[in-house]
Amino acid sequence: MNFLIQNLGQGLQQLEQLAGDPLWGYFQAVAGPDQQISPRELQQCLTSSGIAGTYQPFSLNTCYIMIAMLDRDRSGQMGFNEFKELWAALNQWKTTFMNFDRDRSGTIEGHELHQAVTSFGYNLSPNALNVLLGRYGENGRVKFDDFVALCVRLRALTAQFQQRDTARNGHATFQYDDFIQVTMSL
Amino acid sequence: MNFLIQNLGQGLQQLEQLAGDPLWGYFQAVAGPDQQISPRELQQCLTSSGIAGTYQPFSLNTCYIMIAMLDRDRSGQMGFNEFKELWAALNQWKTTFMNFDRDRSGTIEGHELHQAVTSFGYNLSPNALNVLLGRYGENGRVKFDDFVALCVRLRALTAQFQQRDTARNGHATFQYDDFIQVTMSL
Ligand SMILES: [Ca+2]
Ligand SMILES: [Ca+2]
Ligand SMILES: [Ca+2]
Repeated sequence: MNFLIQNLGQGLQQLEQLAGDPLWGYFQAVAGPDQQISPRELQQCLTSSGIAGTYQPFSLNTCYIMIAMLDRDRSGQMGFNEFKELWAALNQWKTTFMNFDRDRSGTIEGHELHQAVTSFGYNLSPNALNVLLGRYGENGRVKFDDFVALCVRLRALTAQFQQRDTARNGHATFQYDDFIQVTMSL
Repeated sequence: MNFLIQNLGQGLQQLEQLAGDPLWGYFQAVAGPDQQISPRELQQCLTSSGIAGTYQPFSLNTCYIMIAMLDRDRSGQMGFNEFKELWAALNQWKTTFMNFDRDRSGTIEGHELHQAVTSFGYNLSPNALNVLLGRYGENGRVKFDDFVALCVRLRALTAQFQQRDTARNGHATFQYDDFIQVTMSL
């Protein structure tokens, strides 16, 4: 009985929070009755929300890995809580990107990428930064969409690495099947 | 002197081989004066070669990782030898894909993906196969373009893993910066 009342109370509180949450409208309109967002729905949702601003809208590939980053049950879909988490991360990445893309050309360059990545707390070698620039840049310039893909993967791969770096000494051992699951999921 | 003659001999032999190589024409026409193929050039080249057959042409993303797989000097470009290596791998993947896509719908399904991956010699758990299907499939079906992206990454990541699995016991230890270079390069 207490349990039911408690649950009802929590349910009402959640509903109130949702009603006041400006993201709930976007989410609900796109997710449909299953209340889960697929990569294609996320692409529509982010495009209509205008979060990319004057930058190119997100590619389907970037939407896939955005979902994979937060998809703890590996359903390939995204619920509202994950969506809010993504929204917060996206806003941080956008602010950082705009800080460095001063001329609003839609791209940042190598040394700016270094500063951006360092500002997120990553400590990467010049070789690793060149790998990122080679993979996500075109002629040494990184577009917003690719910058987000880079941030998503760097964040998720670092988290997976740290989970396995139990001694916290910058080394982690992977079993082959686990390595493939971690690296091929996004 | 001997050295020069030897070099000249090798050069002539190479030229003769190239003249008889049906791929040389495609490669040269697309690579341009720098004799290196960029992701965009590779996309054009593969489209005009018709290797995708009736399947959709390759996305730019897949072209990026095809180059990254073979790009030993990390220039982001592809020379003729790498191109030939890619061509051989692509033909193997296409043959496998067509064997499983009997109705030529352009997609293969989960249990067929399992058989395909096993036929290449990979031994993956059901969990790992689900990760692949979730990342590269749409509603449980994998298109040829995404199948190639999957094969490229699985091959390259497995090779990188094996290089670090020095005891050949299915475990490999990575230093953080190295892990990021390996996993973010494709
Ligand atoms: Ca700029
Ligand atoms: Ca070229
Ligand atoms: Ca089929």
